[in-house]
Amino acid sequence: MTTLFPETPEFLGALYHPSRVEADVLDLEIEGTLPAAIRGAFYQVSPDPQYPPMLGQDIYFNGDGMVSAFFFEDSKVSLRRRYVKTARLLAQRREGRSLNGVYRNVHTNDPLAATNNTTANTTVLKYNGVLLALKEDALPYAMDPDTLETLGVYDWNGQISSATFTAHPKVDPATGNLLAFSYEAKGDGSPDMAYFEIAPDGQLLHEIWFQAPYAGMVHDFAVTENHVVFPIIPLTVDVERMKRGGPHFQWQPDLPQLFAVLPRKGNAADVRWFKGPANAFQGHTLNAFEENGRIHVDMPITGGNVFYFFPQEDGFVPSPETLSSSLHRWTFDLSSPNDQVEPHALNDYQCEFPRVDDRYIGRPYEHGFVLAFDPTRPYRPENGPIPFQFFNLLTHFNLRTGASDSWFAGDSECFQEPIFVPRSADAAEGDGYVIALLNHIADYASELVVLDANDMAAGPVARVKIPLRMRMSLHGSWAPAE
Amino acid sequence: MTTLFPETPEFLGALYHPSRVEADVLDLEIEGTLPAAIRGAFYQVSPDPQYPPMLGQDIYFNGDGMVSAFFFEDSKVSLRRRYVKTARLLAQRREGRSLNGVYRNVHTNDPLAATNNTTANTTVLKYNGVLLALKEDALPYAMDPDTLETLGVYDWNGQISSATFTAHPKVDPATGNLLAFSYEAKGDGSPDMAYFEIAPDGQLLHEIWFQAPYAGMVHDFAVTENHVVFPIIPLTVDVERMKRGGPHFQWQPDLPQLFAVLPRKGNAADVRWFKGPANAFQGHTLNAFEENGRIHVDMPITGGNVFYFFPQEDGFVPSPETLSSSLHRWTFDLSSPNDQVEPHALNDYQCEFPRVDDRYIGRPYEHGFVLAFDPTRPYRPENGPIPFQFFNLLTHFNLRTGASDSWFAGDSECFQEPIFVPRSADAAEGDGYVIALLNHIADYASELVVLDANDMAAGPVARVKIPLRMRMSLHGSWAPAE
Repeated sequence: MTTLFPETPEFLGALYHPSRVEADVLDLEIEGTLPAAIRGAFYQVSPDPQYPPMLGQDIYFNGDGMVSAFFFEDSKVSLRRRYVKTARLLAQRREGRSLNGVYRNVHTNDPLAATNNTTANTTVLKYNGVLLALKEDALPYAMDPDTLETLGVYDWNGQISSATFTAHPKVDPATGNLLAFSYEAKGDGSPDMAYFEIAPDGQLLHEIWFQAPYAGMVHDFAVTENHVVFPIIPLTVDVERMKRGGPHFQWQPDLPQLFAVLPRKGNAADVRWFKGPANAFQGHTLNAFEENGRIHVDMPITGGNVFYFFPQEDGFVPSPETLSSSLHRWTFDLSSPNDQVEPHALNDYQCEFPRVDDRYIGRPYEHGFVLAFDPTRPYRPENGPIPFQFFNLLTHFNLRTGASDSWFAGDSECFQEPIFVPRSADAAEGDGYVIALLNHIADYASELVVLDANDMAAGPVARVKIPLRMRMSLHGSWAPAE
Repeated sequence: MTTLFPETPEFLGALYHPSRVEADVLDLEIEGTLPAAIRGAFYQVSPDPQYPPMLGQDIYFNGDGMVSAFFFEDSKVSLRRRYVKTARLLAQRREGRSLNGVYRNVHTNDPLAATNNTTANTTVLKYNGVLLALKEDALPYAMDPDTLETLGVYDWNGQISSATFTAHPKVDPATGNLLAFSYEAKGDGSPDMAYFEIAPDGQLLHEIWFQAPYAGMVHDFAVTENHVVFPIIPLTVDVERMKRGGPHFQWQPDLPQLFAVLPRKGNAADVRWFKGPANAFQGHTLNAFEENGRIHVDMPITGGNVFYFFPQEDGFVPSPETLSSSLHRWTFDLSSPNDQVEPHALNDYQCEFPRVDDRYIGRPYEHGFVLAFDPTRPYRPENGPIPFQFFNLLTHFNLRTGASDSWFAGDSECFQEPIFVPRSADAAEGDGYVIALLNHIADYASELVVLDANDMAAGPVARVKIPLRMRMSLHGSWAPAE
């Protein structure tokens, strides 16, 4: 049994070599001045495998959830990092090795693996007094928002009966309600889906169960004042394939980009299905809103299967250079019988990990923040291709004017997903700060950069120095101080 | 108030930039095979300032003690790092800034600083169930050897009345007794010294108080079966200078290398003083032993003041390139009335941080382990001189044959102090493993390397990968599993 991680792109270099460091660092060094108005916690989580993969190889998404919390107070920042102590992690630690096989395929696990297969590695969100560590394959784990101690699986006091729970829930800015959903909601390969609306005190207000035509990945969703939209990505699930040791997901180039549109207060009979072009990949939701009976959903769309680790049946995966994901708008007209939708482009450059001013979720809005990639100034590592998730621009995109305001950090720099923090509770939309992790690839260093959203090109007003390398993360969120 | 450390050599680069990371990393990656016989804990401590210096500059030795524990079990290694929670550290954390001025000069501290000025940053030793964090300016702090939780100032249940306690105590291999001493034992500038012998159950067995002709630094000492030897380095203390804001220590080029030789069971009247050549610096003790009424003490000696931060009165400090510290033997003949001693050279290359097989402390011995520097293959950083404490060789020196067996790790590599771990409890002297931290300067990475002491040149049998940078440390020790 090796104790070394494989020398594959999934585990190599400043961005992807596992860190596994649980840490406390008080009062990080700061270059520049951190605005005192930024008070609260930035939580984020990265897949960070405790042990080298049992099968000798693995995908990035299969790492154990390592939560980082950056606590902002009095123009200072402290860092705490803890693993989510999932049943899966604890079983591995007990045995001193990985017990988990193919991603989201329990049939390939060691008999000693935990029954609960989740790594809780996709996002973290403070809600109703706990920090939820979420992954779409299971119910969340709850953690203490201050100590990051793991409290256990969180089924909302028995109210949520689904097997799974999204890692992209959204908070309705008007009510503070948590809007969430499940897919494969009755277990692996089930086409069942569920929509949940939960009150700030944790009370389940409403749930809607329905079925999709097939089980496919529903990674993110979109919410408006009265509706929710579920993008079903053409990555389908086949339990028989899983039993043969195959992957959970398989790309289906002939399937459309499918969408379910549902009134938030409706029921299963109210679901309407829309179909977009085939062989394209619906990315993360920037935002959505409704206007005169029409629902607009904005997201990056990639022209093919961006998840090379979930190939189509014949094994084909497009070469990364052929793929580009730029921002598009889908418009669903509920007054029209037409169930075909075509997205239209909002910008013309490669971007992902879109974020909005959270106070405008589901409402007409103007400001988006994205990671972007300028291919004219790419980082070219000495060996091998550009890393999977590589972004060299941190960008403010104004949807009203179409203008982009970007900061290019340098030739050997890679951003992680940003968050937006309003300058004050009543600041205008988009008036505030953009905060993101920045990896300096060449020297393995990391920083948390803080930019004024009104002038991204000026670069950071503060650089918070992190004395350890931050492995690439997935998502995170801002919890303002109470 | 800046939150950034100064851009001076004391705080710069892979070796000296403060880390400040309290961490837990379970089951570090290991390249090669870690011998299962290595079972126990390697404890070490580095000065690692919690906050940038109050005065805008500082010396390396003034950093707060950050203890690292590498736990070896079943051919695996886990890392834990915690600050010693000294009164000084807690006061700083309360105020959110450094409160301490000139090194070992309380007259320059902020009024809010803790009364106890120690950083406990020089070595760590497990003894009588606690981990002692030691610095020669105060009594030790005790820590839990497993959790590294700080338990508090440790005065040996009130038995040790000295103001200070050495960071180089030694365990007598025959009795298991702890042999220790104090200088400035009645407070800053006092010429009082004390010798202590403590039983494995913590009982003080014997103490001897005596006075030196003047207060000077006594950093390490030497022990034999029946004697102890105290090297008084020509760095003297002047409380009036300290009150004027000056340094604790000042180099005295005209003072001899002074030695007190004392029977372990004797009293103050038994002290004999010996004088060696002036303008040279007694380094760390490799070992000592007695033979026919003569006492041999082996240590590196530097031909001048190696501590550039403690200049002589006119401010002169020798340029580092002019200094060389090679291994010498002092012989004290107790049967002769002659109180002049001249060291003779044991080797001809630059070395420090000598370690012996602990089972041979104070006894005739053959094997030494040192960090050495080969100036023909130096690391040359792009900017500035060679770092203060720079060693590119890890060396086994055979005192009987005079042979040196070294491993050169590479052009951009720097070792930290090694430890020796016997292959088994009854292995021959020097038969075992040499373990040391290795800093890869160019990529800011660190490893714990494990070499077979019988074949150093072959390089490590195992490299334990550390996913964070290890700031340069001072000393450490091995605690075998019980």
